Amino acid sequence: MPLPKPVTALAPPMPASLVERFAALVGARHAITDPDDQAPYLRDDRGLYFGRTPLVVRPGSTAEVAAVLALAHETGTPVVPQGGATGLVGGHVPHETGAEIVLSLTRMKTVRAVDPAGNTMTVDAGVTLQEAQDAAAAVNRLFPLNIGSKGSCTIGGNLSTNAGGTQAVAYGMARDLVLGVEVVLADGRIWNGLRTLKKDNTGYDLKHLFVGAEGTLGIITGAVLKLVPAPRSIEAAWVGVTSPEAALELLQRAQERAGPSVTGFELMPRNLFGFVLKHLAGARDPLAAPAPWYVLMELSTASAGGLRETLEEILAAGFEAGIVEDAALADTIDQRNAFWRLREGMSEVQKFEGGSIKHDVSVPVASVPAFIAEANAACEALIEGCRVVPFGHLGDGNIHYNLSQPVGADKEAFLARWDEAQALVHGIVGRYGGSISAEHGIGRMKRDLLPGVKDPVELDLMRSLKGLLDPKGILNPGKVL
Amino acid sequence: MPLPKPVTALAPPMPASLVERFAALVGARHAITDPDDQAPYLRDDRGLYFGRTPLVVRPGSTAEVAAVLALAHETGTPVVPQGGATGLVGGHVPHETGAEIVLSLTRMKTVRAVDPAGNTMTVDAGVTLQEAQDAAAAVNRLFPLNIGSKGSCTIGGNLSTNAGGTQAVAYGMARDLVLGVEVVLADGRIWNGLRTLKKDNTGYDLKHLFVGAEGTLGIITGAVLKLVPAPRSIEAAWVGVTSPEAALELLQRAQERAGPSVTGFELMPRNLFGFVLKHLAGARDPLAAPAPWYVLMELSTASAGGLRETLEEILAAGFEAGIVEDAALADTIDQRNAFWRLREGMSEVQKFEGGSIKHDVSVPVASVPAFIAEANAACEALIEGCRVVPFGHLGDGNIHYNLSQPVGADKEAFLARWDEAQALVHGIVGRYGGSISAEHGIGRMKRDLLPGVKDPVELDLMRSLKGLLDPKGILNPGKVL
Repeated sequence: MPLPKPVTALAPPMPASLVERFAALVGARHAITDPDDQAPYLRDDRGLYFGRTPLVVRPGSTAEVAAVLALAHETGTPVVPQGGATGLVGGHVPHETGAEIVLSLTRMKTVRAVDPAGNTMTVDAGVTLQEAQDAAAAVNRLFPLNIGSKGSCTIGGNLSTNAGGTQAVAYGMARDLVLGVEVVLADGRIWNGLRTLKKDNTGYDLKHLFVGAEGTLGIITGAVLKLVPAPRSIEAAWVGVTSPEAALELLQRAQERAGPSVTGFELMPRNLFGFVLKHLAGARDPLAAPAPWYVLMELSTASAGGLRETLEEILAAGFEAGIVEDAALADTIDQRNAFWRLREGMSEVQKFEGGSIKHDVSVPVASVPAFIAEANAACEALIEGCRVVPFGHLGDGNIHYNLSQPVGADKEAFLARWDEAQALVHGIVGRYGGSISAEHGIGRMKRDLLPGVKDPVELDLMRSLKGLLDPKGILNPGKVL
Repeated sequence: MPLPKPVTALAPPMPASLVERFAALVGARHAITDPDDQAPYLRDDRGLYFGRTPLVVRPGSTAEVAAVLALAHETGTPVVPQGGATGLVGGHVPHETGAEIVLSLTRMKTVRAVDPAGNTMTVDAGVTLQEAQDAAAAVNRLFPLNIGSKGSCTIGGNLSTNAGGTQAVAYGMARDLVLGVEVVLADGRIWNGLRTLKKDNTGYDLKHLFVGAEGTLGIITGAVLKLVPAPRSIEAAWVGVTSPEAALELLQRAQERAGPSVTGFELMPRNLFGFVLKHLAGARDPLAAPAPWYVLMELSTASAGGLRETLEEILAAGFEAGIVEDAALADTIDQRNAFWRLREGMSEVQKFEGGSIKHDVSVPVASVPAFIAEANAACEALIEGCRVVPFGHLGDGNIHYNLSQPVGADKEAFLARWDEAQALVHGIVGRYGGSISAEHGIGRMKRDLLPGVKDPVELDLMRSLKGLLDPKGILNPGKVL
């Protein structure tokens, strides 16, 4: 496991008077100094990062966020913005030095407006993804971002990290689902960019600077989200396929046949499915016989009917072509949910098989099969007996390329080879023109890898932008750059 | 008509030695100094702007563009980048002073790669939109940007101006159709951001800085475009509706029923349709009786069938609900093309009715009917007898809000009221949270309006970015900012 860097020297304690000034801006009830109460704000779900802070502030309004940043700017106090704290790369965790305050957006939970006629919704940054989805559903609309942590992750965090997930194949990433943002800049100024317009060509599109910047250029406090009509028909199939090449061909056939109605297309190998069947409570194989690879395909549309026939035609043609071995179609919502539980179980079951070395990579969609073949051969040659379990969003070229330790091997010895395996996998990704972080971001975990994979001109532009928008370097320092 | 500002003092002539240095970078054949040969590069299609230049350079490669900008940066020479020269706001026309050189991208016409499996295409900036569409069609794909000038406008220009058009309702604007860009920066450095990935969260998304910046932050020399499967079914209807409210309700019903298959939804009033019937050769009314307003609705999908029934159901339900008066469905490609000719004729026929005061505005989609009602009343009160002809992309909230002069009135006297009418219309747009430039951009035409409509924080951010990326102010100076 990529252990956190050794704790650097602790910073001199923040003067009590300064802590008090920050606390006064949000009110004592919302200024957390007790270490036990702070704990949930200082960690990540995988246990890779633990930080320290003199103060967690929980502002209740954009004006309070602005006041905190104005004081931080004035005093040169670093600030770590935080949403639901579900990030996987340590972007939301303060460093161990204790020099940074944490600014949690989770009290800002107002759904400011819902406009079903205009297909938009304006929300505070602290609204959870689930709450946003529910507010859309209440007016017969869909907010089509969907990730596993939706119950606790927030819209502000989703936008700051440009979240992806299982429906990006049809609807794009968080960046593609936002019309406008409200941002508090490093110096405390508020930029009201809460546009609800589909078209607006009056100058530079600044919202994209802040989306995906992981809180290093400004703090998103509100957003106008795009909605789409709620689907009336949803069909899902659990499909056994012969290979990743076959899965890719099935994807192309499905998209040629059903276009944007292909709203989910997930790939996984037999060995990982075996882990799921073994460790996930209640899991059962929808198919009668094992297949080498599986696809979970979902179609959905606003139209009332005809989707089942479309799905059946796609699968029948795939069977004819020898790429589909067998398929089970969900007849009920429960069956569909069961298919998705199998898919969602893929992440959590790996821990029952010992140590895991994980990657979140993407390559051009058409290169996924060749990438998997090449990377598998290389990893199996590097670590004898390691079990490669690549799975994920084939429709986006985004593979969670994970390695489980050899059966019976020593976990720590396996994890000690993380950097070596990572360099190997990322090297292959690079040769395919891919990305070393498809959807999780850079945070702390991949910060030091960035100079090795970025065009120097691009890295220079990023650093220049950081210097321009955060001249004192107080916004989530040490993350991304 | 908003007359160009009086010609400012001519700049001192550029030294012949400097002209020669620029010319040598692209070769004498591609360095135009003859005023007659320069003429097409110094004007816009509406005849609003005419410029002067000592030199038009036509580089043949990204490296040549880089060499020109490096020299321009070194010598402080302003450069006006230009694509197909079809812009409507003067963004591509040099000023009258003769101090700027023009850099035309139209020699860079290589389709670098087409990847139907990955649904991407990589092209030079000078490839025309038509050529890009054709290259996609050749592999059974659609590049879904579509604007009237597609035969001559270029991909570089489309991206630099974030072009919109008739299919944005389903596929978004140019910004939404690009995965990566190659940009020459103001100092001549090349940023290779030609990613072909659907997902890549490794740092700030810089491409959006250059898309829609009208050549003021860098020069786009190449791009990776998104493709979608070519539609197999296309259905179009010419629909008479009772009002803009009825058109909006029809739009919502269509999108709830057919989702992203609604690939065109254009609104126009009877009076403008009357102009078309009178002035457009071969135009005839598809309906038996006049209607107060019309909608041209198009559905298209990758699926093979069922679309005609969907369209008929939507229209039948609209008829039942009293919002649709009558509708004609295209039975042939010729009929569909005839419907689109009626729509496309809307712009050009206005000139046969005398002077026109034009606006390109957007409001939230649901506010379009109220905006039209309020603006019509205000304009008719301002200029007695003026004929308001608002038309365009209802699905995007984007209305080309135009006024034709009163019958028999003096054209110049009418046009003299441009600024007054514009202030009135833009004021109403502002109250609806709208945009004074939905798709045409700012260029020269609306530059001086920007401070009046932009959040001062946003304007300050824009100026800061300009200073950062173009510290000597050589890139398309006096445009946008």
